[in-house]
This record gives sequence, C-alpha cells and structure tokens, in this order.
Amino acid sequence: MRTRVAIIGAGPAGLLLGHLLQRAGIDSVILEDCTQAHVEARIRAGVLEQGTVDLLEQAGVAARLRQQGMVHHGIELRFDGQRHHIDLSGLTGGRAITVYGQHEVVRDLIAARQACGAPLLFEVSRVALHGLDSQSPSVSFDHGGQRQVLACDFIAGCDGSHGVSRQAVRPGALQVFERTYPFAWLGILARAAPAAHELVYAGHARGFALFSMRSPEITRLYLQCRPDEDLAGWSDRRIWDELHARLETGDGWRLNEGPVLQKGITPMRSLVTEPMQHGRLFLAGDAAHIVPPTGAKGMNLAVADVRNLAHALAMHYQHGRDDLLAGYSSACLARVWRAEHFSWWMTSLLHRFDDHTPFMARLQHAELAYVCASQAASRMLAENYVGLPFAPLPA
Amino acid sequence: MRTRVAIIGAGPAGLLLGHLLQRAGIDSVILEDCTQAHVEARIRAGVLEQGTVDLLEQAGVAARLRQQGMVHHGIELRFDGQRHHIDLSGLTGGRAITVYGQHEVVRDLIAARQACGAPLLFEVSRVALHGLDSQSPSVSFDHGGQRQVLACDFIAGCDGSHGVSRQAVRPGALQVFERTYPFAWLGILARAAPAAHELVYAGHARGFALFSMRSPEITRLYLQCRPDEDLAGWSDRRIWDELHARLETGDGWRLNEGPVLQKGITPMRSLVTEPMQHGRLFLAGDAAHIVPPTGAKGMNLAVADVRNLAHALAMHYQHGRDDLLAGYSSACLARVWRAEHFSWWMTSLLHRFDDHTPFMARLQHAELAYVCASQAASRMLAENYVGLPFAPLPA
Repeated sequence: MRTRVAIIGAGPAGLLLGHLLQRAGIDSVILEDCTQAHVEARIRAGVLEQGTVDLLEQAGVAARLRQQGMVHHGIELRFDGQRHHIDLSGLTGGRAITVYGQHEVVRDLIAARQACGAPLLFEVSRVALHGLDSQSPSVSFDHGGQRQVLACDFIAGCDGSHGVSRQAVRPGALQVFERTYPFAWLGILARAAPAAHELVYAGHARGFALFSMRSPEITRLYLQCRPDEDLAGWSDRRIWDELHARLETGDGWRLNEGPVLQKGITPMRSLVTEPMQHGRLFLAGDAAHIVPPTGAKGMNLAVADVRNLAHALAMHYQHGRDDLLAGYSSACLARVWRAEHFSWWMTSLLHRFDDHTPFMARLQHAELAYVCASQAASRMLAENYVGLPFAPLPA
Repeated sequence: MRTRVAIIGAGPAGLLLGHLLQRAGIDSVILEDCTQAHVEARIRAGVLEQGTVDLLEQAGVAARLRQQGMVHHGIELRFDGQRHHIDLSGLTGGRAITVYGQHEVVRDLIAARQACGAPLLFEVSRVALHGLDSQSPSVSFDHGGQRQVLACDFIAGCDGSHGVSRQAVRPGALQVFERTYPFAWLGILARAAPAAHELVYAGHARGFALFSMRSPEITRLYLQCRPDEDLAGWSDRRIWDELHARLETGDGWRLNEGPVLQKGITPMRSLVTEPMQHGRLFLAGDAAHIVPPTGAKGMNLAVADVRNLAHALAMHYQHGRDDLLAGYSSACLARVWRAEHFSWWMTSLLHRFDDHTPFMARLQHAELAYVCASQAASRMLAENYVGLPFAPLPA
C-alpha cells in the first residue's frame, strides 16, 4: 500500500489535514485505532475560534456547524458575587466564538472523507513508524487481522499526546517543555437546558467553576478539583451543590439541574514539543502540544497547525518547494506559545491555588478586577479568546 | 506644642500632605529625622505619572518641574536583540510621564513650606507616637536638645517602610502582605549624556537592565543582580561592560560612559499593609506599601494616598464629615493593589528568574513578544505606566 501522506489519528487534526490535502489533490491514508462510533461520541472541547469556523467554512465542511453551532458574542466572569460581561465581539471588531462539540466536527469531517471515498481505516493496532530520517518513510500496522505496510512520502502525527508518533522520535531529538497544574477539572454533561446564553467562568474561594453548554438541551459544567480526585467520592448531589455554590451569585440566577449523562476528570497540564517535526514526521495538534482547557485553545491550535501543514505539503507537491515544510515548526510555534501563555494566564487568573501566599491571592484578585475594569485588559482577554487572526500563508 | 495634623516624615508623602493641608487652611507640623541637605540630595525614583504632574501643578509647586522635567511620550522594550517602542501617549489618549527626580520634588515642596513659614522640623530623633486609639493622640520627640510633645488631632505616618509609624501600631492590628524577589538592582548615576531620549527596559539572558536619566547630563542605569550582591565586586569597568552587554542590541546604538557619581543596591520587594489606618494614625506612601521599582510606582502611589488623605481631612475640618477618613484605607487600597499587580507583572516580565523551568522561561518570552505585538497588551502596559486616572474625590 502506498500514499503520499500517512496520517496517524482521526481526531480533528488528522481528519482536517486529510480533508485539506484531498482538496489540494494530494492523496493520504488516515489510520485510527478506535472505532468510528467511539471517535464520533468522544466528548472533548466545544469552543471554536472565529478563525477555526472560517476555515471549516472555506473547506466546505461547515453546513451542520452553521445550522447547529451556537455563536456567542461574549462570556461572563464571576467573582466576589459579581457578574462581569466580556463583550468579545465588541472588543475584537466583530469576531465571535462558536459552541459546537469537537466530536461534531469529527463527525462532519468523517462524513466528508467517506463521501469522497478517501481511505480512512478505523480499528488499526500496533502502529509503528519507520524511516523517519529517510526519503521513504513507512507505517506498519495491523488491520482486519493482517499486518500491513503503508509506504509514503511524509507522516503526519495527529495521534494526540499519548499516541505513537511523538514516541517514535529517538530520545533527545525533541525538547519537551512541560508544566503540570496542582488541580484538575471534574466535568459533567447534564440533560438540562443551559441557564445562561453565554459561558460563565467563575473564580471562587471554593475553587474555579465553568458553566458551558453543548446544545439547547445539554449543559456542560466543570469544577476545579484535586489532581488525584476520586470520582467515587462525588455523588451527583455533591456535584450540583458545589456547582450552585461556585456559580451562583445570589442575584436570582439559578443553574438548571438534570440527569448527569457523563462524568469525568480532566487533568490540567501544559506541554510543548520543539521542534514539531523530525525528518519526514510532522506533529500536529495534541501530539505536539497540550494546553489546560481553560482558554479553550486545544482543538483550535490543532486546526491552526494543520492549516500550515496542508499548505506546506501543497507547496511541496505543486511547486517543488520545501521551504515551508522546513519552516512548519517555527510557523506553528509562535501561535502555540501565544496560546500556551494565554491558557496559563487564564488558568492562573481563575483557579484557587492552595500554595498561594496571601500576597499572591490578593494580586490574583487585583488582576481579575482589572481585567473587568480596563478596556485594554478586557480586550486582551477577548482577542485571545476568540483567537488571534491566522498569519497569512506564505505564497 | 499643638497642631491639627502631626506628619511624620519629610519625603514626598509628608511634604505634599503638609502642602495640601496648608492650602486647605489646616495647620500641621512635619517632623523629619534627617537633615534638610540629606533629604534634598537623596536619589530615589524619578518617573512621575501624568496624574502626579497634574496634581503638583494644581497645588502650585510645579514651576521648576515644568522647566526641568523631561516629558516622555514613550518607553522602549529590548529583548532578543530587537527594539520595540511603546507609544505611551498614543496608547493612552495623550497621557505622558515626566522624568524629574524625587529629590527635586522634595526640594520644591520644602521651598514652598519654608516660604509660608509652616513648621517643618529636621533632625528630630526618638520619635514616639501616643494615644492612637484615643481622641487626643500625640507625638513625642527630641529636637534641639530637648524632649518635646506635639499634641494633635491626627497623625500621618509618612516615614517610609522602616519608620516608626507602622511599628507604633500594636502587633496584629495590621495585616502585612509581602513578597521578596530573588534579585535586586545595582544602580549607578553617571555623569554622561543620556544616549537615548526615552527609558529603555531590557530583558536579557544575563538579567534585566534599565537605562534611564535624571537630566540632560546625568544617566541613571540599573542592572539586575543577586539580592545579596556585594558592591565591592563591581568595579566601574565591570558595571559598564555588563550594561553594554545587556542594553545594546548590535544595531549601532551605544551607551555613553562617564564618571560614576553614585552606586548602590536596591532590594526588590512588594509589601502592603491593611488597613492603612489605625485609630488616629493614617499611613501613606512607603509606610503603608512598597513596590519593586520596575513599574516606577512608588512615589506616584504616595501622591495618590496623600491626595485622598488631604481631602478626607479637609472634609473633616470643613464639614464635620468623618466618612472619608473612615474610607481612606479602602479608597487607597484599590489603587495600591492595582499598582502592586502591575509592578509584579512588569518585574516578572523582564527579569531573569534562575528558578524558572524551561517552560516558564518560554512563557515569559511569549508574553514579552505579545506585549510588543498586540495593541491591547501594549495599551495595558501603557495605561498602567502613565498611571490610571485618579478616582474622583467624593464630594
């Protein structure tokens, strides 16, 4: 079996890359170890930047997103029993975010791929990468009970932080920058109408909480918890009580309760791999970097990476130019580090840090107050949250 | 001896308070333990916020400031061998900073005080505060070889961080918030024409450096150093070499050298006292809070405190209202914490932290790049640096 680009992973990064390459006339094979049903049901992020929406639109995969995505022009910050509206659109010349589940993006991209018959193999296993330093890399894997080898020109590692791609690079060739936070998020999905039209980020003495939604019937909620929190200790009742305590400000606004459909712990860490390339292997999305979920940047960064990578590959195949492939990593890393800083900043701004001195706790409060009071500071939050404009693609 | 307000300390806070009270027809006595020559020569801060300049102007003590102060409309950030101009005035609707030494402000205020004959005693010693919790506080001190007692209605503690005023409050009545930074500044004053027209803040792998000036003939320079740095290890040659290395970017700009007139180590710490009042004692300026010098906020905060205190005392004497005196601390603390946060932020942005992980070092760099690239972030720096507008004084 042979293709031009072997893509490891059918998450948003891998699927979008395959789609953009296909539109550029570059064939690829996508390999995914889970089932289609699994990846289409996997609940992850749900906030799309303006640029992500625009790109999906241009790529012709936004029909359902346009119908079902919920466009938000602001978010709310709550602390000290006060509510502060951040007018994202007013502060950024009309840019907005769209609430649309990552798994919905995945479904749309799988449907597009399958409609054109481009190869997308689910339930592959024992994936191994070969010849990264050569001109003729390949990927071997088990599929349908058989060992197979996929020869290719390039490999795109889009298989997340725990995937095989990054691990396939010899130790020491990549530098990993990392930070683990002293807390995690306990998240639930509940069948309950969202009680507010916008996302609510709450900084509270009991810990951070986030009110979000996935649809007009489904509320998504998160609570800051210990990094080693045991879900068994959290009855639905305890979770709701804690959410009420952290999110409600005593002005009559009430969270709607409903059956809890899903419950889980999200660890909080930051990670960046430099460079995002090794020989013929190009890393994109979570395979190259992780952000804490606070700034909602994970999937959006994956999209930004893939936009650069698809363009660089197109320039290679269409014009014989390799400079954009050589510059792929540095082109991505400027945005990656911006998003890493923003995610760290928003995390630091809103979470309770048990190791904070009283001085640092006061500073954190002063910064929150400033972000709400100063137009410049609000705009800084807003422009990052809706996503800074993509750099122009080099012609 | 009797007065309405006993003022401890003839720095900018105490002198300006005395001046504003005098203009409101409220008599005061200022007590200072140093000689007049000493306080008039004591080199400290040198950057006045727009609001500070406006207030000194309104108070009628800005004649020399207007002639000799150097109005700056921008500052420069340097890192990675690049120079970035921050257009303070363009970003803040025309506000600017004025470079004018703190000791010059002190000279102007002493001259004004002496011109009207209001009491200002130098070289007092063994100052002690009494009856802070009573209606009739007093201050005892030695002066001219005699023990004296000054009876008063109120005491203003304007005697800095190491003064007697804050120490006179019984332990536990005030909460102190504090942070010590793992570095200090080695500062020199040199007889050399400033090589640039604006202040230069340099973030460098060897550590932070600041280029500043006091007059068209005098350059003021700082280097980040160890907190326990021994000045004896720093010859003038070594200092200049280090300054060249950190401040010059290889584009032809050269620091001018000249005879070193003064050399010293400035410790870096943050400190806030809450509340800034106890009974009949009101703390203002460094007696209540300390900022690291990075944001140039120390003297400006003292001026903001004194503006509130003079107004509150005037409302007491002219209208019998005590609510503004009761609200003095909280009125000041909002601005104090904003300045504490800004000073911490600018310090964190520009200094080398030896305990930074590689991840945190990259984040710091990403933030610096963002501050220069984003108008919102530049404006955030600018509006704090020129000073946020004073809150209106309650009528």
